[in-house]
Amino acid sequence: MSSLDPAALLAQLEWRYATKVFDPTRTIPEATWEILERALVLTPSSFGLQPWHFLVLTDRALRERLLPHAWNQRQVVDSSHLVVLCSRTDTGETEIDRLIARIQEVRGTPTEKLTGLRRSMVSALVQGSFRPMIREWAIRQAYIALGNFMTAAAVIGVDTCPLEGFQPERFDEILGLGPRGLISTVCCAAGYRAATDKYAGQPKVRFPVSEVVERR
Amino acid sequence: MSSLDPAALLAQLEWRYATKVFDPTRTIPEATWEILERALVLTPSSFGLQPWHFLVLTDRALRERLLPHAWNQRQVVDSSHLVVLCSRTDTGETEIDRLIARIQEVRGTPTEKLTGLRRSMVSALVQGSFRPMIREWAIRQAYIALGNFMTAAAVIGVDTCPLEGFQPERFDEILGLGPRGLISTVCCAAGYRAATDKYAGQPKVRFPVSEVVERR
Repeated sequence: MSSLDPAALLAQLEWRYATKVFDPTRTIPEATWEILERALVLTPSSFGLQPWHFLVLTDRALRERLLPHAWNQRQVVDSSHLVVLCSRTDTGETEIDRLIARIQEVRGTPTEKLTGLRRSMVSALVQGSFRPMIREWAIRQAYIALGNFMTAAAVIGVDTCPLEGFQPERFDEILGLGPRGLISTVCCAAGYRAATDKYAGQPKVRFPVSEVVERR
Repeated sequence: MSSLDPAALLAQLEWRYATKVFDPTRTIPEATWEILERALVLTPSSFGLQPWHFLVLTDRALRERLLPHAWNQRQVVDSSHLVVLCSRTDTGETEIDRLIARIQEVRGTPTEKLTGLRRSMVSALVQGSFRPMIREWAIRQAYIALGNFMTAAAVIGVDTCPLEGFQPERFDEILGLGPRGLISTVCCAAGYRAATDKYAGQPKVRFPVSEVVERR
């Protein structure tokens, strides 16, 4: 196992910041980007249901169309890759069966050994009092992917900027998400900081560990 | 910069899995744990507001009390550290002013340079149509911390298991969270996998990259 030294992890997390100015001339190499895509796909999710879809936008003309609906934050266009993390808001028996089929495909598990799992997923997510929360449940899972993605990028020296400030309805329309049962939940720009980004050198503002973490 | 090679990142994310059986005799060394705590604190959040609190439980007697309210998942007790990621659901002007004060403390920014930021935070989070979403907004931020934490742990070779299956009201009661304006949002157990955990060797079930990621 070639894991990272804890001190090096901390250094990378300190190096990370919400990049305001990307260098538009620098592109993440394809081999590196493929690994970041796989990192996204490997994100853990509730029941393993992966109620998400990741749009990766490199087309600058398309991103220019999104820009006015994201408060003209230039990261939308100037980053190397813009990920729109989308959520599947209608998870139900179809999606559960898709996962069951995938488990069988990957692990060769016999159908009868999965009936209990299927039943517990249907019980938890489709029936009962949780159902009205299903949209929010899916959105939360996308935020796990966001956290995973930013940290994965940071440890390999790729800059990111999370973007919550955009108009999801306009994004959904431009990207044609609605008819597919998807919504745009949150975005993350990825690439490399510009030398001119004055935010890169500013000390991080976090509340002290002693105020945020409590041991018992 | 001592970043991780992308292939090594991928290897660590493949190594990671939702650990079902922790080795109760193994404890995360204090120096390593302190870095994971700092990783949690360094999680990016909306406006930098950090609407969270992280309870770190090592006391096994306390965790035994939580166990029946988490469907008796043994990770609650047998892991080295159990993190209860809590959300501050009432973020308002008090929390905004606390952040402003912290920015001044860390960066020495003059007050007048922060009035615009303060106004935009109040406008976005306290006034207007977003306000009813504030609880969910805080919860989503905790999920960023969860994603960050699991990946940070994975790259330094620490096992984790996210736990959504618990009764938050019972946790809140046992941990005395309510009067503090906090709720228990999601948990994450951390430690080291037991040699007997048969799930460690199973192939991961993920939908193919080609189905989940779409480039444009």
